[in-house]
Amino acid sequence: MNELSHFDGEGKIQMVDVSDKDATRRRAVASANVLLSAGTIAKLKTGANPKGDPLEIARIAGIMAAKQTSNLIPLCHQIALSKVNVTANFTEHGIHLESEVVTNSQTGVEMEALTAVSVAVLTIYDMCKAVQKDIEIIDIRLESKTGGKSDFQRAKNDRHDRNKVGGG
Amino acid sequence: MNELSHFDGEGKIQMVDVSDKDATRRRAVASANVLLSAGTIAKLKTGANPKGDPLEIARIAGIMAAKQTSNLIPLCHQIALSKVNVTANFTEHGIHLESEVVTNSQTGVEMEALTAVSVAVLTIYDMCKAVQKDIEIIDIRLESKTGGKSDFQRAKNDRHDRNKVGGG
Amino acid sequence: MNELSHFDGEGKIQMVDVSDKDATRRRAVASANVLLSAGTIAKLKTGANPKGDPLEIARIAGIMAAKQTSNLIPLCHQIALSKVNVTANFTEHGIHLESEVVTNSQTGVEMEALTAVSVAVLTIYDMCKAVQKDIEIIDIRLESKTGGKSDFQRAKNDRHDRNKVGGG
Amino acid sequence: MNELSHFDGEGKIQMVDVSDKDATRRRAVASANVLLSAGTIAKLKTGANPKGDPLEIARIAGIMAAKQTSNLIPLCHQIALSKVNVTANFTEHGIHLESEVVTNSQTGVEMEALTAVSVAVLTIYDMCKAVQKDIEIIDIRLESKTGGKSDFQRAKNDRHDRNKVGGG
Amino acid sequence: MNELSHFDGEGKIQMVDVSDKDATRRRAVASANVLLSAGTIAKLKTGANPKGDPLEIARIAGIMAAKQTSNLIPLCHQIALSKVNVTANFTEHGIHLESEVVTNSQTGVEMEALTAVSVAVLTIYDMCKAVQKDIEIIDIRLESKTGGKSDFQRAKNDRHDRNKVGGG
Amino acid sequence: MNELSHFDGEGKIQMVDVSDKDATRRRAVASANVLLSAGTIAKLKTGANPKGDPLEIARIAGIMAAKQTSNLIPLCHQIALSKVNVTANFTEHGIHLESEVVTNSQTGVEMEALTAVSVAVLTIYDMCKAVQKDIEIIDIRLESKTGGKSDFQRAKNDRHDRNKVGGG
Repeated sequence: MNELSHFDGEGKIQMVDVSDKDATRRRAVASANVLLSAGTIAKLKTGANPKGDPLEIARIAGIMAAKQTSNLIPLCHQIALSKVNVTANFTEHGIHLESEVVTNSQTGVEMEALTAVSVAVLTIYDMCKAVQKDIEIIDIRLESKTGGKSDFQRAKNDRHDRNKVGGG
Repeated sequence: MNELSHFDGEGKIQMVDVSDKDATRRRAVASANVLLSAGTIAKLKTGANPKGDPLEIARIAGIMAAKQTSNLIPLCHQIALSKVNVTANFTEHGIHLESEVVTNSQTGVEMEALTAVSVAVLTIYDMCKAVQKDIEIIDIRLESKTGGKSDFQRAKNDRHDRNKVGGG
Repeated sequence: MNELSHFDGEGKIQMVDVSDKDATRRRAVASANVLLSAGTIAKLKTGANPKGDPLEIARIAGIMAAKQTSNLIPLCHQIALSKVNVTANFTEHGIHLESEVVTNSQTGVEMEALTAVSVAVLTIYDMCKAVQKDIEIIDIRLESKTGGKSDFQRAKNDRHDRNKVGGG
Repeated sequence: MNELSHFDGEGKIQMVDVSDKDATRRRAVASANVLLSAGTIAKLKTGANPKGDPLEIARIAGIMAAKQTSNLIPLCHQIALSKVNVTANFTEHGIHLESEVVTNSQTGVEMEALTAVSVAVLTIYDMCKAVQKDIEIIDIRLESKTGGKSDFQRAKNDRHDRNKVGGG
Repeated sequence: MNELSHFDGEGKIQMVDVSDKDATRRRAVASANVLLSAGTIAKLKTGANPKGDPLEIARIAGIMAAKQTSNLIPLCHQIALSKVNVTANFTEHGIHLESEVVTNSQTGVEMEALTAVSVAVLTIYDMCKAVQKDIEIIDIRLESKTGGKSDFQRAKNDRHDRNKVGGG
Repeated sequence: MNELSHFDGEGKIQMVDVSDKDATRRRAVASANVLLSAGTIAKLKTGANPKGDPLEIARIAGIMAAKQTSNLIPLCHQIALSKVNVTANFTEHGIHLESEVVTNSQTGVEMEALTAVSVAVLTIYDMCKAVQKDIEIIDIRLESKTGGKSDFQRAKNDRHDRNKVGGG
């Protein structure tokens, strides 16, 4: 048997059978950071004045992308999502994003949460690329998942926290 | 006028008018890294034995995603791509991905290159998530762009290279 | 709490959590009218002679659009539809369309019915725009919904019936 | 020959050949109105407090939908849009929406402008449907088109202006 | 160099660069046959009485699918199609379908024509599967292509014509 | 009543109501053959040397297409697939493909299996079209279905086996 479930015994691609798994309430949280210069942050904060929220479009793009996950990631199952939420907040060095996805399904929604946060952060990149060329997206990762065979909670002090932006 | 071209004078979202720009040959290169444990790397390398290439699916997913960019990033223009290429190579600490996108169009393809590499790296995440939970995607960034109003080449020794995996 | 469920307490967009709702049989009916000149109606009626039904394409487009609702309306949930039907009939002043959508799901299908009828009527517009420029689509509205927390049936004599085409 | 260009001589559907037409700068403007109660308008205006703009999501949905037009309307050509803009403003009796679409292409963008405004107004419907059931969408129409074989400008005093909301 | 242009020198997938090719008028014709029992043919012919054309839906599905080709076939370029036409006619042993696709582009539209005819014939399969289980689709092939580096016209008496249905 | 369930009593298109059917485990297997010259087969086998599997892309395309079935075939229901698998193996005269699709749903997955195998075989066509113009796709058919009202298993010695490639 192959530990990497996407490959069969001969090393060929397969979309794994989940038809025997129970439909349970599953939830995943993912996060990402985008590093922006102080000048870019200032322009974003003032650019949408007086009424707009410049990060609203990123939240919307992330929510819509979560629903497209199985069309983007070849071996993902189609999952009807019960809830999708994306937050985006300014930090000292850029913007921190977090997504939360919930379903009642036979398989988990880690990839949906990661897709939501990835497309949301790309949308911010798109907004800012005219004023800054060396933007960098870092720290796309799963924060937690619950409801499947085993739960997961990322350790807060893991070695990658040196990358952590904000402090904000 | 608003320096952030996605917002009009009142701070409302707009998709900018490119109808007066010249159609020129434009090219963008983007890259990303995914951090994997030694165990995960070993499983990937042997898992697709004897004939498969475990990273082929990521390259294909990235190429297909590049063509979906304008459906994912709300204010991106629809651009017919002349060429899309995604490479994925094992490094010491994971996998390094690079995408190249070419068009003959009125606007650039940075977002297409970034989307290609982002979805390719998410596809690798998807393949490995059953054997490792704390995978981390880092360093999604534009390497270079040419053919538009101004060219860009990322400085190799910028401060974020501390994150660079591999060395491989 | 916010009565507009698409906004959270801070006024930010969210896709509401339906994971605690019961999956029940839900049904929605929506309608629309398109105003066409006598000349356009005559051309449509003879144009598809001898075998075609000129409104078939609108019915098909409406059915297919219902299945795309969650990709078009940002905060709509993905709902597997059990039945979609679109009717389109000539009236005295144009064409009257009606859609019916059924699901067994945790949330209602008003938006799916409204999307079906809207895209069907746009498809008629597209067919006729070469021969009439001042076409007008009116009266896109929900006729009834059943199966959720509360049922709804539009009052037949409401003030907007003055707009009603047909009589035919 | 058939005046309705979507039908051939036998009345069968066809997607018309535009390969001999010149690529010119074409522009279309469309509009729509949605009738909302005073209570719904008040909730929308306060619901997104303090920073949000409740109509931003409708503008974004309309822009994204314009890019999907050829996937929704069966015989529409795929057109790369140079610019898409959607405005949405409160009136006395609801919200008035207007879309503007520009391309440099062999065929016009009326359907793209109409699709943008239709999906934008459906998005507003979706936001308000929890607090009002008898919402009505009216007056989806082309305001103007330029750049093709013949220009069009809707007469301002046509008989349908009795439906006009606002006045605001 | 690799004669199979989709593989690079190392045997890895690539989407080939067409940016140096000329945009010319290109046309492709493809065909397919579906074998149906006499009983199924009779039911189709009477089933849509009195006004419907039972094959209209297949033509529409084929036209819409042609526009989706680059989303289905991983290495296909996005091509704006100038014309798509699908015919479907009863033969002695089933239905014969033919598609014609025209573009003004840097690369050919064989795959678009083949996708159109394939999805059209699958749509007929879908309509008939409730009354016949052993339906068979045969002879999906390119009839001709013009406008690229070299033209192609399929020889009419090739060995596969033994499969030809109809006689009609 | 109409035996062809996609047409109502008046011969108009409808998407049939499955809301009263039981959700059961349903499985369908479909197959196809593509005829290739000996030269093309040889090029495919060597072209992806040393590590690639030239048919991997076809398997991936087929799996992704299965998930798009309801967007391609107008009256197909949206079905969440539990498993999709596509095999592709060289035969004496080309390549034989087989797809397997499983769901737990109210309606069967024949069309999903047929769509998977059709798009997979078109992807092989796309790879080979530069070196052979008279490629032919044959024998797209359902091999078996189980889990619905009635099971089906194609007879192995039916008259179409004369077309069978391979023997391999």
